[in-house]
Amino acid sequence: MHKRRICVVVNSRANYGRIKSLLGAVKAHPDLELQLVLGASALLQRFGGVRSVIENDGFVPVSVVHTIVEGETPATMAKSTGLGVIELSTQFENLKPDIVLTVADRFETIATAIAASYMNIPVAHTQGGEVTGSIDECVRHAVTKLSHLHFPATEQAAEYIRRMGEDPATVFWTGCPAIDLVADLDLEMPADFFTRYKGVGDEIDIRKPYIVVLQHPVTTEYGSGFAQICETLEAVRRLEKQTVWLWPNVDAGSDDVSKGLRMAREKNQTKGIHFYRNFSPEDYARLIANADCLLGNSSSALREGAFLGVPAVNIGTRQQGRECGSNVVHADYDCRQILERAREQIQHGKYPRDGRFGIGDAGVKIANILATTTPRIQKRLHYSV
Amino acid sequence: MHKRRICVVVNSRANYGRIKSLLGAVKAHPDLELQLVLGASALLQRFGGVRSVIENDGFVPVSVVHTIVEGETPATMAKSTGLGVIELSTQFENLKPDIVLTVADRFETIATAIAASYMNIPVAHTQGGEVTGSIDECVRHAVTKLSHLHFPATEQAAEYIRRMGEDPATVFWTGCPAIDLVADLDLEMPADFFTRYKGVGDEIDIRKPYIVVLQHPVTTEYGSGFAQICETLEAVRRLEKQTVWLWPNVDAGSDDVSKGLRMAREKNQTKGIHFYRNFSPEDYARLIANADCLLGNSSSALREGAFLGVPAVNIGTRQQGRECGSNVVHADYDCRQILERAREQIQHGKYPRDGRFGIGDAGVKIANILATTTPRIQKRLHYSV
Amino acid sequence: MHKRRICVVVNSRANYGRIKSLLGAVKAHPDLELQLVLGASALLQRFGGVRSVIENDGFVPVSVVHTIVEGETPATMAKSTGLGVIELSTQFENLKPDIVLTVADRFETIATAIAASYMNIPVAHTQGGEVTGSIDECVRHAVTKLSHLHFPATEQAAEYIRRMGEDPATVFWTGCPAIDLVADLDLEMPADFFTRYKGVGDEIDIRKPYIVVLQHPVTTEYGSGFAQICETLEAVRRLEKQTVWLWPNVDAGSDDVSKGLRMAREKNQTKGIHFYRNFSPEDYARLIANADCLLGNSSSALREGAFLGVPAVNIGTRQQGRECGSNVVHADYDCRQILERAREQIQHGKYPRDGRFGIGDAGVKIANILATTTPRIQKRLHYSV
Amino acid sequence: MHKRRICVVVNSRANYGRIKSLLGAVKAHPDLELQLVLGASALLQRFGGVRSVIENDGFVPVSVVHTIVEGETPATMAKSTGLGVIELSTQFENLKPDIVLTVADRFETIATAIAASYMNIPVAHTQGGEVTGSIDECVRHAVTKLSHLHFPATEQAAEYIRRMGEDPATVFWTGCPAIDLVADLDLEMPADFFTRYKGVGDEIDIRKPYIVVLQHPVTTEYGSGFAQICETLEAVRRLEKQTVWLWPNVDAGSDDVSKGLRMAREKNQTKGIHFYRNFSPEDYARLIANADCLLGNSSSALREGAFLGVPAVNIGTRQQGRECGSNVVHADYDCRQILERAREQIQHGKYPRDGRFGIGDAGVKIANILATTTPRIQKRLHYSV
Repeated sequence: MHKRRICVVVNSRANYGRIKSLLGAVKAHPDLELQLVLGASALLQRFGGVRSVIENDGFVPVSVVHTIVEGETPATMAKSTGLGVIELSTQFENLKPDIVLTVADRFETIATAIAASYMNIPVAHTQGGEVTGSIDECVRHAVTKLSHLHFPATEQAAEYIRRMGEDPATVFWTGCPAIDLVADLDLEMPADFFTRYKGVGDEIDIRKPYIVVLQHPVTTEYGSGFAQICETLEAVRRLEKQTVWLWPNVDAGSDDVSKGLRMAREKNQTKGIHFYRNFSPEDYARLIANADCLLGNSSSALREGAFLGVPAVNIGTRQQGRECGSNVVHADYDCRQILERAREQIQHGKYPRDGRFGIGDAGVKIANILATTTPRIQKRLHYSV
Repeated sequence: MHKRRICVVVNSRANYGRIKSLLGAVKAHPDLELQLVLGASALLQRFGGVRSVIENDGFVPVSVVHTIVEGETPATMAKSTGLGVIELSTQFENLKPDIVLTVADRFETIATAIAASYMNIPVAHTQGGEVTGSIDECVRHAVTKLSHLHFPATEQAAEYIRRMGEDPATVFWTGCPAIDLVADLDLEMPADFFTRYKGVGDEIDIRKPYIVVLQHPVTTEYGSGFAQICETLEAVRRLEKQTVWLWPNVDAGSDDVSKGLRMAREKNQTKGIHFYRNFSPEDYARLIANADCLLGNSSSALREGAFLGVPAVNIGTRQQGRECGSNVVHADYDCRQILERAREQIQHGKYPRDGRFGIGDAGVKIANILATTTPRIQKRLHYSV
Repeated sequence: MHKRRICVVVNSRANYGRIKSLLGAVKAHPDLELQLVLGASALLQRFGGVRSVIENDGFVPVSVVHTIVEGETPATMAKSTGLGVIELSTQFENLKPDIVLTVADRFETIATAIAASYMNIPVAHTQGGEVTGSIDECVRHAVTKLSHLHFPATEQAAEYIRRMGEDPATVFWTGCPAIDLVADLDLEMPADFFTRYKGVGDEIDIRKPYIVVLQHPVTTEYGSGFAQICETLEAVRRLEKQTVWLWPNVDAGSDDVSKGLRMAREKNQTKGIHFYRNFSPEDYARLIANADCLLGNSSSALREGAFLGVPAVNIGTRQQGRECGSNVVHADYDCRQILERAREQIQHGKYPRDGRFGIGDAGVKIANILATTTPRIQKRLHYSV
Repeated sequence: MHKRRICVVVNSRANYGRIKSLLGAVKAHPDLELQLVLGASALLQRFGGVRSVIENDGFVPVSVVHTIVEGETPATMAKSTGLGVIELSTQFENLKPDIVLTVADRFETIATAIAASYMNIPVAHTQGGEVTGSIDECVRHAVTKLSHLHFPATEQAAEYIRRMGEDPATVFWTGCPAIDLVADLDLEMPADFFTRYKGVGDEIDIRKPYIVVLQHPVTTEYGSGFAQICETLEAVRRLEKQTVWLWPNVDAGSDDVSKGLRMAREKNQTKGIHFYRNFSPEDYARLIANADCLLGNSSSALREGAFLGVPAVNIGTRQQGRECGSNVVHADYDCRQILERAREQIQHGKYPRDGRFGIGDAGVKIANILATTTPRIQKRLHYSV
């Protein structure tokens, strides 16, 4: 009998960090074979060469597929989804996976789920059942409805998945593989940490405190990204702290965010800020673990942030409704509010560890379930049973 | 102020019958503008020239899009979905609809929902919340999660949609527009009914009783379609009744079904059977209303069939779990069981009218809601409110 | 050093027969590795399961790609080309061929050439430089302009390629691999020849004379296919000979041709005709070698027909201008003219062998050149040198 | 009778300048209707918002189509071509143009030509028959083979087109519409010229002499773009003149060029340089008309440059073999050679007007031919006549 083939489609730097421990666990499992497909922004230089990071970690992709239609508008996000479905169905037809695993809630996630489910290949899904804003919210739940195995990060997410009508026998609360990576890690930063990565802007002195900013566009507020980022920029300027700033994802509206950042740079209003495109998942974990505060709307502030106890100010609607620990406070797109909350959080300092998103064993747990469970391809809304 | 632009994508003969009354209601509404897009199998000759039927009804499409990747395999269904997303997003970008309406649970349905929702265009959905087999089951619920306005056909479907976490304020139990068409109709068949449509096989004598067969492949049982159709063919042969047989949809496995039908024809085992590709929605309603019995796995046996009280034998898993009236009995893919149930049903004769799928006013109700409700583009799982 | 990877994309039954000897020669060559990709109509059941024929011949495809957009209209031919380019570029990116070989003049041919040439992979092309009608004419020459190595079938075609401005050092007159297959073959037909293949219609008695008809739609005369095929059907009816009729290619207008054939069948005007979907390349060669006459517009009547000396009546414009031997006479789309010419040709009987399209060694010659020539990726119109 | 519908697909800033006079002439012609479709990089912000320039000029696009697959690698150029074919064939099916016009030699150009020619819509082509390097070379000639009406810029190009086997009756030497735009223009630069456009870098003093640099990647030398641009950067640094530098096209390798430019900026090695993304076609003409010297590999140095007599140093292979006037000298990718030639050219000053690419009446001439010629859709290699 052949090993069970588990195909994982990794599409971005964020994707990768959230699935890396599972990739390792699948690769190491005697009954599983890993089929790693790289696509979308994981292949794009301007998102920081995730491909080479992955290959350096010892994962060899069986194929790569380019699926991003350029433009970062709502229409091109839709088109990228369509192109993803077309390309991935060819991959699945040739790779013949037994299970396809898809991560979280992005357009590549649903493209993967659609291609596999139409092809009668069981879909396994991580990070389902969470609640947020942005288009991710409805995509995440649509992916749940297309999935045959659910690996939610939190107990509440598991409960929500069951309430949506999924068969409880297919819902496994394992915690999030993103936490595994953080839990396993020596979080100390080497002295040359900030010079290992390129990027532009003022130098960061590793011996001094710093904050981290990562703010993505909100696709359902398309057109407002420029104004939103300007509020954050002004708050950071007034805060007068060393700042590590990461460029946003490839989403509708990224251009607006980037434009705001570029204009600030041109006007020399980015004193103390260094802009980076990418870190390895481990270094990203170290970066936030040692930060005085996280600003923006990245889910990592809520997810890894809970485990690490790092103070965070979540800005705007993108994470609206997402479960979080006590390390997070919320602010509107409002310079003064952001500034005030950031000061309070820096003042407060570290929070105690919160294990709601997992405690470090999700990858191994999921791999074991993938090796032993035989999902039924015909789903049925569970209320009707 | 411009009229509210309602874009409806019609993709197949079945689609059309299920939305026709609404197309008329939107067109007639003083505050709405209808943008009709034709795609997928609605453009294909071998599915019976639905386009000309639509145009003869006075609906002028604003554009047509070819989206079917040939093959009728699981992989090509997936690809057709992807191509649909790509093409429809271009249409939506140029047509700028205020609301996009999508019907039921096919791959074109989810392609429409994905394109619109990524483009921040509210999605209205009919026939959500029902339960069946086949891939349609999970696609239908995924579309619900991507939709902003829900127009379920039955009270139970409305309840299921709410239980899945949709905001009750967005769920409108209107009944199904498919019933409107039946309710409005003079169901008498003209003497030349069967000669108006081409098709192949033995002649049907309109003065004598007949049965209707329509059996689609079940995508999640891909590969079994040939064996399944052979059971039905044998049952029909033994039943020795005049039979109107319709070709299946363009789905993974259609080829297997068609092969079974063609082989039976070559072997002259189709005595008394006439094969048709298409009827206008009205004539289809007349056809089933006057049949002694319906055989197969078409949802029309359950939906329009309930309203018409026409005896039906539902075969196999495709409609498994779908709500139905007393006019339906179930049979496995088993020649003897099908035969027995068919005889019983023919014996029984007509059932009383059952209004659970609607009573004939769905189109007008939906149009009024589309004209007056302003959907919120940012959804949120309602459990978390 | 790795073997030189030669990627051949086979897209249809006709394609396969025209490249099979070369596939064998590449596979057998010590310095070459064959990467066989199957696509387009080679994957479609209704074109006769070419895939299994190929696999039975011992060729294992490295991947398959579905690229036909259904409809057989001018728009869907264009779309199929586009989808082919998208899919094949992913294949080439993952397979990393050293040379891509593309056959003749179909939409899959130019899709292959565009994908490879934009990816800086040298393109080798067979059957360039010939002259015909249909869209194939301009596509063939466009492919020549995108190709880096030319393997024309005839001396005149080689001359035309050079006159079009290709570097003479890249033009190799090798003859056509299609002839190799015929030249190598025992042309005798086994007694059960006609029953080995399914198909529909009257039985063919192998002991009696028969003719072969194969008439494709002419894309540049889209809309006329139905009238054209009716003329041929009527001529065949009056000829009153046993007839083996092959279904047409997947091209804009195929539906019209098929419709003509189906209507004739329904009206019982196909006495003595048996319709087939596909033969293996060898059996197709046997079939035409032993026919009394070939009718239609297939290039095989001109190409293999010249070598075999089989009388042929070429109908209409599809082969207009194509070089041919004395075995071919021409007829308009005119029942009487076709009938008259067919009678004359049957009367005449076999013609002497004509080697202008090759003498049986093309495959080996081409493989040797592929193994030893290093094409320059930067082309230049040779007039300017 | 309807006006003849002329569909023009404009895909980039360069495209637009080269066809603008013709757009105006078509729009003004009493027998013609302009159908303007915008696609590809014409829609992308990072290529400078060409769309708004076009709309400000009074041209209203009938539709827009996103067709760029992100990555700027050889594989994504191929994919963008494929996506272009898919999207444009839908546009053509709905717009029903009588003639489609395509410009020059880019991937969007051949996508347009393939979609239209498969759909039996005559293709008109400008800038055919020229000779250059890069993938453009073979794409240009392939487009010629797919085109039904040829409007070459130069007498030699017309001759080459005929030699390639095109019917002389379809080849019209009209000159290039790009020259019309320059010929009509007041070339004086307003005082605020350089501040009207954003961009980054040192300020340009309009009262002092400046040079213009525009260097695209060479797709057939993919991977060398970074090294190539570094040579040019170093030459410009040593030249110590005010420099207007334009970002490159979206082509395989653009990323390498951009990376070179960004790195130079980060290292503060771009003294005296201002980087711009886009000018209106008129302002671009003014910019080069008043420059002391043009550096790089843009065809505008050869084309508009000949008419304007502006000294130019053409670098590398991209324009290799292209006809040019005496205003152009050539240099390898070599810092010292570039520097030396640039100094000589600046020293030399303006050259006399050279009308080989046209004298300013191409647009009107072409529009008149489009209004009066009826192209035959069935082409034939003219050698065989």
